[in-house]
Amino acid sequence: MTELRIDANLVAETNAQQAEYLAQDYDMLAGQLARRNIDINAITERAMAFEVAVPSWGTGTGGTRFARFPGLAEPRNIFEKLQDCAVINQLTRCTREVSPHFPWDRVDDFSELRQYADNLGLGFTCVNSNTFQDQPGQQHSYKYGSLTNTSQAAREQAIAHNIECIQWGQTLGAKALTVWVGDGSNHPGQQHFQHALERYLDSMRKIYAALPDDWQVFIEHKMFEPAFYSTVIQDWGTNVLCAMELGDKAKSLVDLGHHAPNVNIEMIVSRLIQFKKLAGFHFNDSKYGDDDLDSGSLHPYQQFLIFNELVDAEYRKQEGFAPCYMLDQSHNVTDPIESLMNSAEEVQRSYVKALLVDREALYAAQADNDALQASRLLKAAFNTDVGPILAMARSRQNGAIDPVQTYRAANYRAAIAADRPSSGVSGSGIV
Amino acid sequence: MTELRIDANLVAETNAQQAEYLAQDYDMLAGQLARRNIDINAITERAMAFEVAVPSWGTGTGGTRFARFPGLAEPRNIFEKLQDCAVINQLTRCTREVSPHFPWDRVDDFSELRQYADNLGLGFTCVNSNTFQDQPGQQHSYKYGSLTNTSQAAREQAIAHNIECIQWGQTLGAKALTVWVGDGSNHPGQQHFQHALERYLDSMRKIYAALPDDWQVFIEHKMFEPAFYSTVIQDWGTNVLCAMELGDKAKSLVDLGHHAPNVNIEMIVSRLIQFKKLAGFHFNDSKYGDDDLDSGSLHPYQQFLIFNELVDAEYRKQEGFAPCYMLDQSHNVTDPIESLMNSAEEVQRSYVKALLVDREALYAAQADNDALQASRLLKAAFNTDVGPILAMARSRQNGAIDPVQTYRAANYRAAIAADRPSSGVSGSGIV
Amino acid sequence: MTELRIDANLVAETNAQQAEYLAQDYDMLAGQLARRNIDINAITERAMAFEVAVPSWGTGTGGTRFARFPGLAEPRNIFEKLQDCAVINQLTRCTREVSPHFPWDRVDDFSELRQYADNLGLGFTCVNSNTFQDQPGQQHSYKYGSLTNTSQAAREQAIAHNIECIQWGQTLGAKALTVWVGDGSNHPGQQHFQHALERYLDSMRKIYAALPDDWQVFIEHKMFEPAFYSTVIQDWGTNVLCAMELGDKAKSLVDLGHHAPNVNIEMIVSRLIQFKKLAGFHFNDSKYGDDDLDSGSLHPYQQFLIFNELVDAEYRKQEGFAPCYMLDQSHNVTDPIESLMNSAEEVQRSYVKALLVDREALYAAQADNDALQASRLLKAAFNTDVGPILAMARSRQNGAIDPVQTYRAANYRAAIAADRPSSGVSGSGIV
Amino acid sequence: MTELRIDANLVAETNAQQAEYLAQDYDMLAGQLARRNIDINAITERAMAFEVAVPSWGTGTGGTRFARFPGLAEPRNIFEKLQDCAVINQLTRCTREVSPHFPWDRVDDFSELRQYADNLGLGFTCVNSNTFQDQPGQQHSYKYGSLTNTSQAAREQAIAHNIECIQWGQTLGAKALTVWVGDGSNHPGQQHFQHALERYLDSMRKIYAALPDDWQVFIEHKMFEPAFYSTVIQDWGTNVLCAMELGDKAKSLVDLGHHAPNVNIEMIVSRLIQFKKLAGFHFNDSKYGDDDLDSGSLHPYQQFLIFNELVDAEYRKQEGFAPCYMLDQSHNVTDPIESLMNSAEEVQRSYVKALLVDREALYAAQADNDALQASRLLKAAFNTDVGPILAMARSRQNGAIDPVQTYRAANYRAAIAADRPSSGVSGSGIV
Repeated sequence: MTELRIDANLVAETNAQQAEYLAQDYDMLAGQLARRNIDINAITERAMAFEVAVPSWGTGTGGTRFARFPGLAEPRNIFEKLQDCAVINQLTRCTREVSPHFPWDRVDDFSELRQYADNLGLGFTCVNSNTFQDQPGQQHSYKYGSLTNTSQAAREQAIAHNIECIQWGQTLGAKALTVWVGDGSNHPGQQHFQHALERYLDSMRKIYAALPDDWQVFIEHKMFEPAFYSTVIQDWGTNVLCAMELGDKAKSLVDLGHHAPNVNIEMIVSRLIQFKKLAGFHFNDSKYGDDDLDSGSLHPYQQFLIFNELVDAEYRKQEGFAPCYMLDQSHNVTDPIESLMNSAEEVQRSYVKALLVDREALYAAQADNDALQASRLLKAAFNTDVGPILAMARSRQNGAIDPVQTYRAANYRAAIAADRPSSGVSGSGIV
Repeated sequence: MTELRIDANLVAETNAQQAEYLAQDYDMLAGQLARRNIDINAITERAMAFEVAVPSWGTGTGGTRFARFPGLAEPRNIFEKLQDCAVINQLTRCTREVSPHFPWDRVDDFSELRQYADNLGLGFTCVNSNTFQDQPGQQHSYKYGSLTNTSQAAREQAIAHNIECIQWGQTLGAKALTVWVGDGSNHPGQQHFQHALERYLDSMRKIYAALPDDWQVFIEHKMFEPAFYSTVIQDWGTNVLCAMELGDKAKSLVDLGHHAPNVNIEMIVSRLIQFKKLAGFHFNDSKYGDDDLDSGSLHPYQQFLIFNELVDAEYRKQEGFAPCYMLDQSHNVTDPIESLMNSAEEVQRSYVKALLVDREALYAAQADNDALQASRLLKAAFNTDVGPILAMARSRQNGAIDPVQTYRAANYRAAIAADRPSSGVSGSGIV
Repeated sequence: MTELRIDANLVAETNAQQAEYLAQDYDMLAGQLARRNIDINAITERAMAFEVAVPSWGTGTGGTRFARFPGLAEPRNIFEKLQDCAVINQLTRCTREVSPHFPWDRVDDFSELRQYADNLGLGFTCVNSNTFQDQPGQQHSYKYGSLTNTSQAAREQAIAHNIECIQWGQTLGAKALTVWVGDGSNHPGQQHFQHALERYLDSMRKIYAALPDDWQVFIEHKMFEPAFYSTVIQDWGTNVLCAMELGDKAKSLVDLGHHAPNVNIEMIVSRLIQFKKLAGFHFNDSKYGDDDLDSGSLHPYQQFLIFNELVDAEYRKQEGFAPCYMLDQSHNVTDPIESLMNSAEEVQRSYVKALLVDREALYAAQADNDALQASRLLKAAFNTDVGPILAMARSRQNGAIDPVQTYRAANYRAAIAADRPSSGVSGSGIV
Repeated sequence: MTELRIDANLVAETNAQQAEYLAQDYDMLAGQLARRNIDINAITERAMAFEVAVPSWGTGTGGTRFARFPGLAEPRNIFEKLQDCAVINQLTRCTREVSPHFPWDRVDDFSELRQYADNLGLGFTCVNSNTFQDQPGQQHSYKYGSLTNTSQAAREQAIAHNIECIQWGQTLGAKALTVWVGDGSNHPGQQHFQHALERYLDSMRKIYAALPDDWQVFIEHKMFEPAFYSTVIQDWGTNVLCAMELGDKAKSLVDLGHHAPNVNIEMIVSRLIQFKKLAGFHFNDSKYGDDDLDSGSLHPYQQFLIFNELVDAEYRKQEGFAPCYMLDQSHNVTDPIESLMNSAEEVQRSYVKALLVDREALYAAQADNDALQASRLLKAAFNTDVGPILAMARSRQNGAIDPVQTYRAANYRAAIAADRPSSGVSGSGIV
């Protein structure tokens, strides 16, 4: 039986206070949707089935190159991170999976870790390797690159780490490895673009060869940071070409903050779907670069338009379409648990709104070049307040009608603060 | 009595079909808002009082430097543009004012024009001068600039045109002149930045001196286009400094598409409010540059955040706060009337949502540095579906519950097509 | 024998005035380069062999959606455009080829046109189709797209036009077709991204099938304009995927102004080289979007870094590397002949500087991760004033040591103005 | 007598090997410039008088939020940083001043520190405060802001720190305080824009009041990072308005990496000159954000265009024009001493090239709207290889003809490595 981190009675009580209004709002919305020939309960069931994974590193307070300002009772290791993930899932009921990051989350006994997660009602999804930092005692430095390093020894060390990540991930029950490298250059001329990418592909072929039959490898591109002139997998173009070079088990992961200014991300998503290479997402929001802000906090309509592509692919039964959804955020000024709960809901909100789009009417407007009507059909879905559906989906699964409010009522951080004295060092591994 | 362009019976009939559902939705929303201590009727009254002006040039089909694809029954002169504006206002009931552009909208008898507008239930707001094009028979070319031209004669010609715009505007009942110039440079060195701005200020001082006592002049900045290396009023910084140099009657106009990528526009709005220099807006939406897309069609949350600043200034009774709201869009692939109706509603929607923000709770969250709660308070307002309020505001003023649907039912373009044979030339003056 | 548009005696005389100083400067530079183990004459010979094509449409004054300000004695048809191209090539000696644009440059007798060009010492390279404008009498409009239009009839019309462009180009001696379409959308939802690209690929397959054995088709991507929400070939990623779908004769063309802000274009060039898909270039410069400014006028170091990739590929004898170089600029405030001459020289300057890079030393610095030294090696080449090499290359081929100065001395426009009365309409076809 | 960190004999010997070629190159350049009516020795003297300050924090290896990869023999305190600065100045002879950062460079006895610098031939310029990090034992956290914090106690702590920086700076002989704060927000709503700026201005007024008569305060704006939604001094517009509010001793500092994409920075420089508010510069280069790359390494022409504005203001004897020049870079993959030497030379190079612009000819071209000629006049200066002037300026002051080569020959890091065991912690204070 799943161990609950927040008192189930508290959840039930706070829900009880809101249940009547929720029922009213839900009924009203049911009526409105019925007029549009939409069965609210079918939508709610899809909302209940929706999942977005939580990144283990997101449970710690993030920072920038300038500073990190620690929060109260931060988790100090993967076990404590899982505790916090369990809170998030208990209240939101849409984050059953955790995406671990190695070596930050390395333990001696991965079977024990899996069992620990299972007791909390959690599982593991895509594992992440780390060759963008040097670890204590590491033989070869990644200062000048990892999978693209001009030193063969450094590359082999990085390859070996990725392969051990796969092995650890197998024990944890994961099915994919996400590879993001910080390799690139800060000066024109520093790196030979083509030779670097050739080395990258050579390294990746070795990692690819180590994939179990039912595993995939996800390539993550990023425009800049930590390298500020060039990045080896700088955009989705290089990403997809590499995925094609490697084979069917290689796919391209989209992090919403890793693109050039003004880029139409929903179109990139469509292209990756079309060419059968969409791995999935690292959801977050951003205004300037890889800001890692809370998902949907700045551009909720863009997030909706991305889900419009995803739901459209589902609707069309696009071959090979099975993306993984993960959050990837840095919480510098908020309680990470609150931000992750809120963000999971925002992602789910976009999904549910996208389900409301009248697709056949949209296809008809597209066929007629009725741009205004097409635009209005999307807005009709987006403008619908689906809050009651999300709340009902949680309520029906014993989650919280209002996760943040319930979390605050539970006073979780204060309760565990004594058990988690501050080390001053982030458990997230960043900064 | 106001001449109606769309049959009032048609409006009444289409409204009648929707009235029952609207009443239901409005009542349910009233209940939800009441829980949040918000009186829906007070909000609806503010929605009814809300106005956004229509640009006369927006009624024609727009184009790009590559092509313009004409639409059916485009207006060929200011009288026909006013007819279309009357349709927009009849159905939306929030666009009583028209912003004219000279010399495109020049007529021999401006009193007659004002009367014509009045008969249609319309009035005039800010007049726009045009010194970015050469007119037939014009003595001095603006190829190398207008108010900043190195030729004194060219500058004086441009000044004189602005002054005549003021005079025409007085007859029309307007109270402000908006000055946007295309002056700038395409090559480093082409223009001496400081000397050019000094010439601009000299020219503007002469225009400023010609302002009637109750008039204002609005300076519009723009990052680029038609000049592609430098623009004389390139951003809000230069804009506000010029407005300060000129005096209290000079203010800074914000066009949402005239900024650098990633810029926080709502913050610029706040700064202009704080320094008592916000003239108002040219509303539109954009992804790349001055795309002049339909307002709120891409970034509805950004538009909401801008109105959050505006409503906050109202709430705080910020001294001297009285901005003018105008649309400024280019409709290349839609019926301009449909786009303008839809956009007016989208701007109104943002305003109404911003009215729902719990400001005292927001101030409290800000004081507590409760970033997540502050963010959620804004989202609580944004996520509310205020469609019933907007529809009711229209309905109570004999507008259309669904303006686009009613407009389509009226078959307006087809009905007037015979009266407006295509000239192949845009009545908008652009391209 | 080639007909000269500028009096050969005038060229000889102006050259004679500068020859002595040029000889001195050239000798001094020879000595400096000899210290770096570079044979200046070998470099000069490569400069003499360098070619960049002139776009026929570039000879007319350009404009923006706001206005076009005509210049003196603009060419009114392809024959007059060729006259101007002949001036450019006579003085610069590096622009022997012209890239025509149809239907703007359509004539009844293409053999006669080819002969006319030949008499002027000119030939034809890549032909450009135009399905972004409607032509008088055209049956189906491209308002809602051409190769991606939802109407099969419109698509077939666009396909047929591309095929006729190939046929005309064959007569002219060209070997490639460049396809740029304005297809895209201004509203979310207007176009189904995947279906639109599928239609594009279907259309392109038919054009591809019509290619003669020794022809290629070049796909040109562009981020935005004339569509402002999405563009069907929005970036190099979609471009290269389409080129791969089509086959070996399809390649990806890079226009320097068609990318997102901050994008590392030299890296894209490297990627296209690596994947054997680099078609060539439309050279120009830009600050904001597709500004079409004079090549190298704003970012000369970026242009050098691009040529660093190109020369490196030559040096490494990269398989299948044979890019086409073309200018593509809009001259709004300069004499197009002057801008094109100057830009051709700037492109050639970047090429020659890139030839000076000590590649073996660079490879060694890259192998050693000596970023500063690598950066300095590039700068050592870039900082070299190769002006004497460029001037000598022209002088040795009877071009002008200083093309702009000689052109001004020739008073070309004034001499032909009587023969070219202004029509008020651009011969460039744009605006 | 100044203590030299690099053996003077080594410098003399390496110079001796290059002196003959330098003399030749210098003489030939003298002849070329004489043709353009430029006296090379007058230029060389201005090069010799040119100064750009070194940031103390730049002598340590930088990093990103992801990692920092330490370098060999990094300085561990301000005394060791000064040693490295002395190397830079000894070899380049254009970096006599150091800009310190507190509390990183805090010492018990600032008189002793000043004497230590003086012995090394160094002095101090603008001091920098730090309220973007929490220091051990600090009473109030800056997690939610410093000068704008909603807590008055936190603001007063930040004000007091700035005032102590002024006091320390007085002892060091500095004349200005640079204030950069990380204050801003990551979530819409987190911060009330206007109230935050009001608090900023209140805090700054207290700091301003503490300025000695001959001191100035420099305000530094930045678009983003460490805050990713809004920054209190987000651009030059807010910067200059605040400087105007404070008074004549407040000016606006330009960091080249702190602007929005595509912004025309040279134009901002011109505006600040015109409005008498240009404080000076933090020089660096960037492609994406505040990348802090080596000055001129990516955009040398932009840097030249900035100096074109600066030299033009000197030429016009613009009232009140006296900017401070400083480097501000992060050296993640190079030896900081090498990067700082190279960057100082690149800044000096831009200055010297700007001196070569034929200003009267440029003014004439501007008056004639001869855009191409204006552009060519700038390029004529930029394309001149001024390397011999820079080398001669160094050589005449006993600096190194080739600073990097001489530095490498001296084997400085290896020689001091034993004295500077790695602490693993950056002496730069960053990360």
